[in-house]
Amino acid sequence: MNFKEELQNKQAAVNAMMERALTFIPDVNRDVIFEAMRYSAIDAGKRIRPVLAMAAAEALSGDGEKALPFGCSLEMIHCYSLIHDDLPAMDNDDLRRGKPTNHKVYGEGMAVLAGDALLTHAFSWLFSQPAPPEQLVAIGKILSDAAGVDGMLGGQVIDIAFEGKPVEEATLYDLHRRKTGALLLAAVQIGAVVAGKPDALNIYGKNIGLAFQVQDDILDVIGDEALLGKPIGSDAKNQKTTFVTLYGLDGAKELLHSITEKAVDSLSPFGEKAAFLRELALYLENRVL
Amino acid sequence: MNFKEELQNKQAAVNAMMERALTFIPDVNRDVIFEAMRYSAIDAGKRIRPVLAMAAAEALSGDGEKALPFGCSLEMIHCYSLIHDDLPAMDNDDLRRGKPTNHKVYGEGMAVLAGDALLTHAFSWLFSQPAPPEQLVAIGKILSDAAGVDGMLGGQVIDIAFEGKPVEEATLYDLHRRKTGALLLAAVQIGAVVAGKPDALNIYGKNIGLAFQVQDDILDVIGDEALLGKPIGSDAKNQKTTFVTLYGLDGAKELLHSITEKAVDSLSPFGEKAAFLRELALYLENRVL
Repeated sequence: MNFKEELQNKQAAVNAMMERALTFIPDVNRDVIFEAMRYSAIDAGKRIRPVLAMAAAEALSGDGEKALPFGCSLEMIHCYSLIHDDLPAMDNDDLRRGKPTNHKVYGEGMAVLAGDALLTHAFSWLFSQPAPPEQLVAIGKILSDAAGVDGMLGGQVIDIAFEGKPVEEATLYDLHRRKTGALLLAAVQIGAVVAGKPDALNIYGKNIGLAFQVQDDILDVIGDEALLGKPIGSDAKNQKTTFVTLYGLDGAKELLHSITEKAVDSLSPFGEKAAFLRELALYLENRVL
Repeated sequence: MNFKEELQNKQAAVNAMMERALTFIPDVNRDVIFEAMRYSAIDAGKRIRPVLAMAAAEALSGDGEKALPFGCSLEMIHCYSLIHDDLPAMDNDDLRRGKPTNHKVYGEGMAVLAGDALLTHAFSWLFSQPAPPEQLVAIGKILSDAAGVDGMLGGQVIDIAFEGKPVEEATLYDLHRRKTGALLLAAVQIGAVVAGKPDALNIYGKNIGLAFQVQDDILDVIGDEALLGKPIGSDAKNQKTTFVTLYGLDGAKELLHSITEKAVDSLSPFGEKAAFLRELALYLENRVL
């Protein structure tokens, strides 16, 4: 397997399906919302979550394609969360992925609506899939729970609650298990549900979910602004507790390495079919954006 | 049938289930979002949508209770939309149902999240119901389509697009069919799906959806501020095109009466079992809040 090539193939498949999922019948009065939704969801980001969903299904059943539409629902939820996170009332960010944030282009009101619309469309798209109803319900439950107050939104709330205040170690883990980890675990679980083995990859999913955030914290210190498409040093500026402030840069790197290893080790029962998932964990550990 | 009593019974059932659906395990770091969600969704409003869902199921099958949990999902979506509508970046309203709006109490960032959380929880709650998966999928599709860019959100976008500008008759109907009508029709359709007759009440649902908005426009001219819990005259102040500016007060009242009649007439095949739905249409025509 050529990992880079396989990753690009999967990303291309995601991009094609996102394009399909976000194609609307033109309407002069509503075109602006379609445009605002697409601005933040088309040609955007690394598509890690849907790629993970496909790779998880592939590792367990050999067929990753079936997880693709559901991975796209998850990606819409991810994109909505970024639009709302960037709002002036939240993080007040001007740049995202190297271009102006949604509200900078479409205004604050429309950005709120574009986020709402992507979240809602994630479910419309899910319910339009010709999969068995039991599967749609299982996946819908994973999606909504991971996105809600017990998952991503809960993490966001904790993040706001501790703005400018020191965070204890246990709370930091709880925050990121929810804020970043929940959707990444959900991606893996969705792939596993499609393959008929709902909980088979939970250890992998939990560990790469955490690893992703640890690397985020590291990149905010030593990352390349041009590659990241956003300024670094914002955590320090905002006096945020991160895995780097907690353990130091080397300590954070060690943590990153050990949880990535845990993720990789958990794949041993799945042999060669899990090769891509294995490489993906290493890719995420070493990512520069 | 005593309509008033029956309405109160249904509202009480909705309130009890909303309380159950929005009870969370306390967590000192996340209690604020639970509180913000509950602030706008508990003891709030007339519960028209879930009452409609129950009444529709009752009219078709004799059993309204089964539609109650799904009506509550719809009510959560309704409540989320009010929170986001009231935001400074949108309508910038300070009062809703006689109390300060969500962002006035919890701040703008938390109000965005509370809306997001209610929308997401509507689906978590839906997927937690022990109904047949086919039914959950059918209802989920109705809910998400009615709430999304082809429904309520689309109407909201049109509303913003024409802020301070005159609206043509056809556009005004399109706006309200989406913005208010879509969720009210969805309420009726959900009840009908639960009863196994998905499209049986569509004429009723479409007409009361429109009637609801016409009466809203009328109340904004002749309503009682104390009863409404919000200032009247805001449409005129914002130079909004409404059914009253389009047809005059008497013309709007005539329209309201004729579409209410259409809704009531469409119920004739269902005889005595539809008595509550019939009375509900008349109640909505004559409502003062």
